[in-house]
Amino acid sequence: MSRFSQPQDPLFQALDRSLDVDRRLWPYDVAQSRAHSAMLAAQGIISDADKTAIHTALDEVEQELAQGRFPFRADDVDIHMAIERRVTELAGPAGGKIHTGRSRNDQVATDLALYVRDHAVRLADQVEVLARTLLDVAQRHLDWALPGYTHLQRAQPVYLSHHLLAYVWMLVRDRERFRFAARQADVLPLGAGALAGVNFDTDRTLVARDLGFAGVVPNSIDAVSNRDFALDLLQACAVLSTHLSRLGAEIVLWTSSEFGFMELSDAWSSGSSLMPQKKNPDCGELLRGKAPRVVGHLAALHGVMHALPLTYNKDLQEDKEHVFDAVDTVSVCLDAANGMLSTASFRRQAMSAAASDENIAATDIADWLVKRGLPFRDSHGVVAGIVRTAVESDRNLSSLTLEEFRGHSELFDESIYEIFQQSAWLESKVSLGGTALPRVSEQLQQARAVLDL
Amino acid sequence: MSRFSQPQDPLFQALDRSLDVDRRLWPYDVAQSRAHSAMLAAQGIISDADKTAIHTALDEVEQELAQGRFPFRADDVDIHMAIERRVTELAGPAGGKIHTGRSRNDQVATDLALYVRDHAVRLADQVEVLARTLLDVAQRHLDWALPGYTHLQRAQPVYLSHHLLAYVWMLVRDRERFRFAARQADVLPLGAGALAGVNFDTDRTLVARDLGFAGVVPNSIDAVSNRDFALDLLQACAVLSTHLSRLGAEIVLWTSSEFGFMELSDAWSSGSSLMPQKKNPDCGELLRGKAPRVVGHLAALHGVMHALPLTYNKDLQEDKEHVFDAVDTVSVCLDAANGMLSTASFRRQAMSAAASDENIAATDIADWLVKRGLPFRDSHGVVAGIVRTAVESDRNLSSLTLEEFRGHSELFDESIYEIFQQSAWLESKVSLGGTALPRVSEQLQQARAVLDL
Amino acid sequence: MSRFSQPQDPLFQALDRSLDVDRRLWPYDVAQSRAHSAMLAAQGIISDADKTAIHTALDEVEQELAQGRFPFRADDVDIHMAIERRVTELAGPAGGKIHTGRSRNDQVATDLALYVRDHAVRLADQVEVLARTLLDVAQRHLDWALPGYTHLQRAQPVYLSHHLLAYVWMLVRDRERFRFAARQADVLPLGAGALAGVNFDTDRTLVARDLGFAGVVPNSIDAVSNRDFALDLLQACAVLSTHLSRLGAEIVLWTSSEFGFMELSDAWSSGSSLMPQKKNPDCGELLRGKAPRVVGHLAALHGVMHALPLTYNKDLQEDKEHVFDAVDTVSVCLDAANGMLSTASFRRQAMSAAASDENIAATDIADWLVKRGLPFRDSHGVVAGIVRTAVESDRNLSSLTLEEFRGHSELFDESIYEIFQQSAWLESKVSLGGTALPRVSEQLQQARAVLDL
Amino acid sequence: MSRFSQPQDPLFQALDRSLDVDRRLWPYDVAQSRAHSAMLAAQGIISDADKTAIHTALDEVEQELAQGRFPFRADDVDIHMAIERRVTELAGPAGGKIHTGRSRNDQVATDLALYVRDHAVRLADQVEVLARTLLDVAQRHLDWALPGYTHLQRAQPVYLSHHLLAYVWMLVRDRERFRFAARQADVLPLGAGALAGVNFDTDRTLVARDLGFAGVVPNSIDAVSNRDFALDLLQACAVLSTHLSRLGAEIVLWTSSEFGFMELSDAWSSGSSLMPQKKNPDCGELLRGKAPRVVGHLAALHGVMHALPLTYNKDLQEDKEHVFDAVDTVSVCLDAANGMLSTASFRRQAMSAAASDENIAATDIADWLVKRGLPFRDSHGVVAGIVRTAVESDRNLSSLTLEEFRGHSELFDESIYEIFQQSAWLESKVSLGGTALPRVSEQLQQARAVLDL
Repeated sequence: MSRFSQPQDPLFQALDRSLDVDRRLWPYDVAQSRAHSAMLAAQGIISDADKTAIHTALDEVEQELAQGRFPFRADDVDIHMAIERRVTELAGPAGGKIHTGRSRNDQVATDLALYVRDHAVRLADQVEVLARTLLDVAQRHLDWALPGYTHLQRAQPVYLSHHLLAYVWMLVRDRERFRFAARQADVLPLGAGALAGVNFDTDRTLVARDLGFAGVVPNSIDAVSNRDFALDLLQACAVLSTHLSRLGAEIVLWTSSEFGFMELSDAWSSGSSLMPQKKNPDCGELLRGKAPRVVGHLAALHGVMHALPLTYNKDLQEDKEHVFDAVDTVSVCLDAANGMLSTASFRRQAMSAAASDENIAATDIADWLVKRGLPFRDSHGVVAGIVRTAVESDRNLSSLTLEEFRGHSELFDESIYEIFQQSAWLESKVSLGGTALPRVSEQLQQARAVLDL
Repeated sequence: MSRFSQPQDPLFQALDRSLDVDRRLWPYDVAQSRAHSAMLAAQGIISDADKTAIHTALDEVEQELAQGRFPFRADDVDIHMAIERRVTELAGPAGGKIHTGRSRNDQVATDLALYVRDHAVRLADQVEVLARTLLDVAQRHLDWALPGYTHLQRAQPVYLSHHLLAYVWMLVRDRERFRFAARQADVLPLGAGALAGVNFDTDRTLVARDLGFAGVVPNSIDAVSNRDFALDLLQACAVLSTHLSRLGAEIVLWTSSEFGFMELSDAWSSGSSLMPQKKNPDCGELLRGKAPRVVGHLAALHGVMHALPLTYNKDLQEDKEHVFDAVDTVSVCLDAANGMLSTASFRRQAMSAAASDENIAATDIADWLVKRGLPFRDSHGVVAGIVRTAVESDRNLSSLTLEEFRGHSELFDESIYEIFQQSAWLESKVSLGGTALPRVSEQLQQARAVLDL
Repeated sequence: MSRFSQPQDPLFQALDRSLDVDRRLWPYDVAQSRAHSAMLAAQGIISDADKTAIHTALDEVEQELAQGRFPFRADDVDIHMAIERRVTELAGPAGGKIHTGRSRNDQVATDLALYVRDHAVRLADQVEVLARTLLDVAQRHLDWALPGYTHLQRAQPVYLSHHLLAYVWMLVRDRERFRFAARQADVLPLGAGALAGVNFDTDRTLVARDLGFAGVVPNSIDAVSNRDFALDLLQACAVLSTHLSRLGAEIVLWTSSEFGFMELSDAWSSGSSLMPQKKNPDCGELLRGKAPRVVGHLAALHGVMHALPLTYNKDLQEDKEHVFDAVDTVSVCLDAANGMLSTASFRRQAMSAAASDENIAATDIADWLVKRGLPFRDSHGVVAGIVRTAVESDRNLSSLTLEEFRGHSELFDESIYEIFQQSAWLESKVSLGGTALPRVSEQLQQARAVLDL
Repeated sequence: MSRFSQPQDPLFQALDRSLDVDRRLWPYDVAQSRAHSAMLAAQGIISDADKTAIHTALDEVEQELAQGRFPFRADDVDIHMAIERRVTELAGPAGGKIHTGRSRNDQVATDLALYVRDHAVRLADQVEVLARTLLDVAQRHLDWALPGYTHLQRAQPVYLSHHLLAYVWMLVRDRERFRFAARQADVLPLGAGALAGVNFDTDRTLVARDLGFAGVVPNSIDAVSNRDFALDLLQACAVLSTHLSRLGAEIVLWTSSEFGFMELSDAWSSGSSLMPQKKNPDCGELLRGKAPRVVGHLAALHGVMHALPLTYNKDLQEDKEHVFDAVDTVSVCLDAANGMLSTASFRRQAMSAAASDENIAATDIADWLVKRGLPFRDSHGVVAGIVRTAVESDRNLSSLTLEEFRGHSELFDESIYEIFQQSAWLESKVSLGGTALPRVSEQLQQARAVLDL
């Protein structure tokens, strides 16, 4: 019997019903119901027989759900009620005892915490897979030169390995962020009841141990009101997707005719419905285009939590779709980045030609002067003048005569022309983290160690 | 035959495939294909026989889709290719001509424009329905007093009708915003080809007329790159959902025990899985909690468009989910607000008691002094002093003696006590748009006229 | 005298004080005070002498503020109180009457509406200026070919004029959006009092006429609670900034060595602190990088309004900074885009060379076949095969022999080679809005007409 | 000399100039310049005499900046160039050597990392201060009952201490989040040069040690491209501000006449310009209204980073304002929350009366039946029926006769009436984290331990 005398309006039920969304929480809901009822029995709140009946029913429910034959009903408002309803059908009166000392408020918080912890760990693993792929690609292109860009202007040459390693370090940080989110979700909400605790002598630490939680939420009100761990997961997803959007943007650039640094495999390219010649980097574009969606989820959940008085409010039902879609999105993006990168090929000659643009030796000329005693700021001015001379006469720097060089500074001698050999520009970047090959090799090892490969 | 020698990776196809999302565009895709092929025939680009074959096939396709028996295939990447594929199955070689002078780029832009225009109009209609319901509720509670709040502190009494009319005016503006979005979508992209126009002597104005567009997009590049109309629809949805969130927040407040101004019908209330006594305003909470989601979609689509070079990029595939979910969300919220409000009841006595709080007469006392010659700023100070006297002695304002009043200003006489009759406070707000009954009645009429009722 | 017995905490005052932000509203606050007091006198609520004293004081206040010599005091919490305080200093007791029948609630709403209307109009004008500059640049480069891109892959050649016109049409829509925002702000809030109307027989239509408003807000509660017009202005700014981010992104691409289509003037370029050779398109990057900031403001104000019960709440103080910074940001971006574009130069040869990439003739080959009777879908497949042949043998399309062509379709004859003349590809796009020169000229005229040039 | 032949346009300079924003980075810029030049000397790249001259000049610059007498010039584009320029003025030619082996790219990244680390630590400290204040207030109101709410409906009574402790645990998590951000910023970018490393044999670990960094960024490209630590700080600020918005929202509710649970001190309240009686909780409202602003900054910086190709791009200049304003905002909010809470008073009687609402005993009645053997789900139904009986006859639950109780279940006996004593409802919540006093005391101790008090 309900306290209401009228049935709910179908429109309202459509709004209120969350089964289509929260259905995927079932493995967590079954697990927590198992642990909760085991605890109830251990504490003598229900009988062992009841517990056994409940567990047997849960086993069957688990099978039904795993095999897609669970008999959902139109009036199941959410997965929690559906499972309890079905357990009661299967277990008889014992099923009615499963919700003893539990509320949907702590129940949904627990399911979501389990989901977040689980997927934070899985995404951290996927991040590692992509990082390894990048390491492999870097290793295979250890000494392939390409221009490094600032402001999308060629700035200084680097090795492709060095460039790709920049993404590896982003992913290393992403892994930390997912681990942080997992830790934030690693405290058990269950046992808080609706908000105030329960009237039974429960053992929450037992349930926590059973479900693999590191501890229990110490405050029942916080347990049902808190979604910080979901925000932490969304932030981890958002930063990762922002990283992938940068990778995607570079792939789009590099596969353009103008850059021509990279070619995607046919398996990771798209054609055009109209233009038969097109080979489009759709996958790179989608990596780029998905980030705002994930950031939108993060901002939206912050918005949902905004100004919400304690404790549980129905607004919190708006947590799951944001989390689920963000997780799904970054998961498929990680797989896609992995597949696309591991099958792509690079064009050594095009990259090398671009990296041989003499203008990008200008800093090295300036440093050449510094090493001969000119203060850097003066030397920067001298070289700017040299560049201007070259630009105005439409020549390369190496085409300037020694007189012209010396017209800008008496310090110049013949050895300045050695600078225009490409590998010189690369191998002179000897500082820690720089692009000189020994440094890149060092970095590869360091990255491997951090990733535990 | 494709230009590719390898098949696409299944992971990539999963990322690239948009059929599950864009499937709902089918009515628009069928309509545009019909109009496009009719134009091709009218211009002599295809034969009348081909057109007839195509139209017959489209009729069948339309039936199949409407009846849920369209034979989708696993390799249908989107609804556009699925329909073209099926038309070709049904119409034979003529089907291969449907994409003449058309690209998926202008095709998807056209489908989305049709969707946006259609739903902007529908949502404007739904907004009107809710506005009418609010007008009815306002009419039924024309002279029911309640406190108006600023800072959630009781400020001055108003009539419930007046308060509810504030929402009507928000909705009137929402209708304008949806109409603006509809106009922005009312220009035909089709005919732009991939980006540069097409090699055939097409008649775009004919297609526009056929599909009911007010004009054609004058630039083929803009036609395939532009999603402003989607941003405009999302903004209309976002502002509306923000309005509804304010309404929802007030319903949550008003149905609390502390306010006690409103009771929802059982049909629009929820119970608790644990607490048998609860009657929860879930619907109000969801109106409140859905707004950040819609704003998230708006921000996300802005993010997708951010820094996107012209013309079409795959990132634009990320437009539809944001638009569809925002439309679905505000549509169900409008229905829900309508159902909830039209069945709710108000508690006249509780509102009236709160509106009789004497403190909210303070401004009227100040104005009483102003009318007797005291500058407002001085009079404000006098009454602040009177309030302080009352607060410190824990009494109502009307319990102060005339001597006490006169201790603050010599201007007071016996007639000051007339102010403490509640209706006086309400009926003295005679300014245009104020809460005096004749003004509210005037406003009701004005709102009816604006809404064309 | 205040109702409080303790002074405010300095920390609280720091939080509460908004003078540093709202100070720039002073011209609007002076104007509304003038109109309000004139109305009070016209209605006999204050004397003509008081009005004259107030107006004289307001004239002096206006001078002081315009000349930066207004004597602000540490305890001025906002510009409204500062002006009223100063008027009272200058006008004596009459100054205390200026706030008769007015509240800070309707006062700030009115100042903000005046600001929004004013700046919406100004920004619409700035948008027109940029549109004209683009038209000029388009006119000067009417028949300069460059590749049109989809997915950043060369797709079909277009004229630079045609490409730039795409931005003109975006700006035309931006102008409509600013005009919409201006209309939304064109209704007078003043006269609503705190929330319920006022106790005086005011004439709000007189004030509206005086301040140039098209009408008055019909509901006093809505008048003080509404910030829709600010959201509308922010949306107009956000869409515009998103457009400018696309322009900025293209400028960054085009000025890269790889594209080499464009060169910025020195006056609109930056150097590097380290690399003397660098000429960086900072301005393009800032156009690109500013859009998320403006979208952030839009989302934030939606967030502020979210779930806010009626009527005025202090949260609304968070409206101004978002609006002011968005307006400032897009205003400087419009000026910058204008300056950068009007002084930039394009590199005809580089663009033309890229536009001659034969692969982008593929669609035209397909259409050539269509015109000879092959259904488009078949023809698309034929040409895809031809492209594959060319790619696999590392040749241009025009290097394929006629036999090779005929190996793919018997329909080919010698005339197919005519297609590989670049202008053919451009001039065959004869559809309305297409890139053929007569169409572009038509479009230029249409744009001029729409912009009233 | 510059490579440019034209001066920059003043409009462009206005857009490009960041001095007004980045000026506050000066302490970090001075510190890094000191450490960088010390390392250059230690490595023999500059002479000890040069280092001494630079350090002496930096000491003077530091004094000038600290005392507000630094001679800024109109052409100082940012704080970095201003300091280098001034050092050169003071130190002569040696000053021109300070930028040896450094680029503005690694320089700004280092300043920002120093700022983020510093402020993450400071904010963590401020969070602790607020947590302690909450603990004190909780201790002082250990056994003051009030209703716990779900859906803003009274659900189950709790102690105020228990409720306030929920915020303490949020703050404990906030502290973790700030510490995470501090760790992310604790790796030195300096030494990366423009992007590729530098041409000198620098010792980055020496600089790191000098500036207190835990390590150096292992990849020079990542060093200048990465702003993750800024995103992490913004997320920490955003979650914190969302927590404070919930606290602010509750304060607004509790200080309303309808709730009447709390009274703010005069020192933390505002009056009204029009209504002399008003005592407004502006501070609570601002805590509530500031969160969307901080979330807006988080989303905006994600947007800035979106799709940005490596390495440095000017867009990154858009990082600082978001970070600075977020830090300022949450810092002042933390202070304000602290001041407001430590001076507020609670109304024991009003809270207690609300907590005595008998309806909130319903769960306890259900549990009473459970303890007598009825399955919970059945017992929930029985009590729902009892509530309905009470509601329909407009009585309290305790006014129902034993017959009426037994009409719903034979299990009832006289002892059911004991449940309606308020403390029973509270003290029966004995589960870990529940509201029973021993549990709350345990929780207070635990919170003290976690906070190291």
